[in-house]
Parts: sequence; C-alpha cells; structure tokens
Amino acid sequence: MREIDLYKEVENIKKFIVNTLNKTTFQKVILGLSGGIDSALSGALCASALGSENVIGVMMPYKSSSPKSIEHAKLVAQTFKITYDIIPITSMVDAYFDEFEPDANLLRRGNRMARERMCILYDLSAKYKAIVVGTSNKSEIYTGYCTQYGDSACAFEPFAHLYKTEVWQMAKILKIPDVIIDKKPTADLWEGQTDEEDIGISYYTIDEILHFILDEKIGKEEIIKRGFTDHDIELVLKKIEYSEFKRRMPLEIN
Amino acid sequence: MREIDLYKEVENIKKFIVNTLNKTTFQKVILGLSGGIDSALSGALCASALGSENVIGVMMPYKSSSPKSIEHAKLVAQTFKITYDIIPITSMVDAYFDEFEPDANLLRRGNRMARERMCILYDLSAKYKAIVVGTSNKSEIYTGYCTQYGDSACAFEPFAHLYKTEVWQMAKILKIPDVIIDKKPTADLWEGQTDEEDIGISYYTIDEILHFILDEKIGKEEIIKRGFTDHDIELVLKKIEYSEFKRRMPLEIN
Repeated sequence: MREIDLYKEVENIKKFIVNTLNKTTFQKVILGLSGGIDSALSGALCASALGSENVIGVMMPYKSSSPKSIEHAKLVAQTFKITYDIIPITSMVDAYFDEFEPDANLLRRGNRMARERMCILYDLSAKYKAIVVGTSNKSEIYTGYCTQYGDSACAFEPFAHLYKTEVWQMAKILKIPDVIIDKKPTADLWEGQTDEEDIGISYYTIDEILHFILDEKIGKEEIIKRGFTDHDIELVLKKIEYSEFKRRMPLEIN
Repeated sequence: MREIDLYKEVENIKKFIVNTLNKTTFQKVILGLSGGIDSALSGALCASALGSENVIGVMMPYKSSSPKSIEHAKLVAQTFKITYDIIPITSMVDAYFDEFEPDANLLRRGNRMARERMCILYDLSAKYKAIVVGTSNKSEIYTGYCTQYGDSACAFEPFAHLYKTEVWQMAKILKIPDVIIDKKPTADLWEGQTDEEDIGISYYTIDEILHFILDEKIGKEEIIKRGFTDHDIELVLKKIEYSEFKRRMPLEIN
C-alpha cells in the first residue's frame, strides 16, 4: 500500500476546508453523523479546521437503525463538541413505501433512506446557512458503494482522496474513539449488515487493488504477481466500471 | 440569437438518446411529467427515439400544485402515448415540515419538493429498470434556476445545450400541444408564480445575453453595444457565477 504522511495530510485537509469555506459566503458546515468512522472523521477534521462552533451534526436514524449507531454518533458529537439535531427519517420514508411501494426490496429502501438524509441535510443547510460537507472515501467512491444523490451528495469532500484503510489510520491521529474505529463498517440497513460482506472482499484487499489500478496504473497480470487473485481484481475492475456514472455529471450531447 | 437547424437537432438528439441507452443495460427511460414544456419536450424526444413503450412518465403533484399542471401532464402523456404513474408528494413532504420544520419558508419547501420528486424517480428507476432522463435546458442550467440534487438530477440530459427559447421552437416541431407551449413557464410552487418573475428578466433577454457570454464569449461592453442594459447583463453574470456549484461534482482536494 502507498505510504502517505497522514499527519501532514491532516494539515493539508484542514487548509482545504478553510480555503473552501473562504470561497463561499458560508462560515459553517453541516453533516450527517451516522455513528460510523467516515462521518466521525469528517466532523473531527471540520471541527479542528473551523472550530467546533462552526460544525453542525445531524443524526437521522430510521426505525431499523441500530441503537448503537446513534449512541456512537452522540459520542462523536461529545468528543468534538459538535452541536446536533436528531431527525428520524421513519415517517417520511414510510409515508412513501407504505402508501405507494409496499413491495420495494431492501436495496430500494436503503437508497431511499440515503436520499432522504440528503434532502434533510440540504434543507437544514438552508436553515442554518451551513455548507454540506461530504464523508466519502476513495474506496467507496471507486467501488460505487454509495447512493447517487444520497450520501455522495455534498458541496465538498475532505478525504475523497484517501482509502478506507487510510481513514482508519487518520481516525487514530484525530483521536476518534476506539469503539468507532474498531467496529465493522456498515450501512446499518439491517441487523448484522457489513460493507465488506456487501462488497464481497475486505477493505484491505480492495484498497491494495484500487491503489495498483488507480495510482500505480498497472494491469491485471502485474497485480496478480503482487499476490492478488484474478477473481478479486476482476471484481474491483467491474465495480469501478459500473459505478462510473456516480462520479460524473449527467451526460450531455456536446 | 444563434440560428440552429432545429429539425436537424431533433435528429441529433434522438441519436444521442439511442446511443446513451445502448451504453447501458437499460431499454427504458423514466421522467417526471410536470405539465410544463421541458418535461413535455424530453418525453416527446424519448418517445420518438425509443418508442412510446419505452418511456415512463411520473406525475408528482403537491397539494398546492395547480390542477392545470396535472391536466397538462396527462395531455402530454396522451399525445405521445406515454404510460404514467401518479404519486402525490404531499404526505412525504408534509411529514417532514409538519413534524420537524414547520417554519420553513417557501424556497426551502420548493427545493424539498424538487428533491422528493428526484427520490421517487430514482426509486421507480430501480423498480422499472428505466434510466432517469433529464429535462433541463441551458437557460436554467446557467442561471441556476433549478434545485441541486432535485430536478437537475438525472443520468443524461437530451437538450442541456438548448436555450429556453429554442425549447419553445423545438416543441412546435414535435407538435407539443399549444396550450403547453403558450403558457408562462412556472415552477408551480404557488399560485401565479412564473420563472421570469423569479429570475427578474424575460427568457428572451436571458437567452440573448447567455448566448453572447457563453457562445460568442464577448464582454459586457460589447453586449451593451448590442442593445442590452448593464443591469440585465450583470444579473446574468452573477447568476452564472453563483450557480457554478450546481454544474460540477463536489470539490476535492486533488
């Protein structure tokens, strides 16, 4: 895996956050706090860059969300002195599915939940005059493990250039509570769900393969020589290809 | 104003629609039918390019939407033989504002409605295996008269390169009913609202000035010589600048 000086990178990101805000009329940022490590890192970086008083967290549980998630989100808010709102999304999401689409599967429901949270964050962005800061990392962006116009929607991304394994390392530097760093990443759509089971391979393997493809720009045969299987490399290559539409604006004729 | 052969442009757009679908695993498109001219044109172009059987319309009225809007949307569906669903957004939108943000102003409510419609279109996109086709024109894209992650969210835009005044002309070629072409453009958020009052100048003036800025790439002094006021040119320049964030992906550090 590549070796980045993550202490220096924290400083770069903080400068990026300050510079981005300076280009706007906003002084505050707003973000969804899920209880997971990515939103914890985004909140911690913003609090460090802008001061805690300029960071607003929003916790948006669904009725099936784990109670642990909101507990961890509150722990993040306390740790970094971030004020927060709690807006459960159940009534809006259920109003749609109960009335119009009762047979929708879990994938559709999960995507709707992610988009509901975007709707709320953007509405509160207008209320609080706070810019929506992203929480995406390079591993999920390139595997497409995110909802278009949902959790990937924001004004700017502080660590879209860092892989998930680097997020874990940076989280330690910023003293994010261990309980959040150590738990298995999950989209929390159902009991026991984990990102890695959804994606099919571990983040360590994904990140190594993504690094060879995206940064080192070496081909499959070379990556196999570094000790990875044809199956895993193909899986990552397909995910990059199938999620390309999530990383660009709508296609136009010209 | 520039002179485009709009008959030829209809053929170009139809080819673009077919080619875009061919690059995906989808055979159908889905779009919101508002009763306005832009969604009528998008539906008509797609029906002509792909066959009516491959176009799905969705009408998503709010309780304050004009009854004329849904009447016009149905007229579009009938004219171009587009099947449609009707999903009123009132219960989802009100669930949010009534419970959590009762004091939200009309702008916030309008943006939430646009995003609610996006959520529904993307959910039904998964249900019907149909790709979301856009309805934006160049005038609204460059003045920012649209909701980010709302009505501007789609997989591809068939006429993002055409100004509103060109949309009117192309609509005649495609035989969109006159009642839709002739009515004043409106976001239909409240009784009597019109785009042009919201924006502050007429689409004819906006389009001429946008054309000079974007296509001819001439400066303010030159545009004033063509007969436009400093006030109107400044207004358009500011709108282009302030809406820049709507035309790009989230900012990243690298």
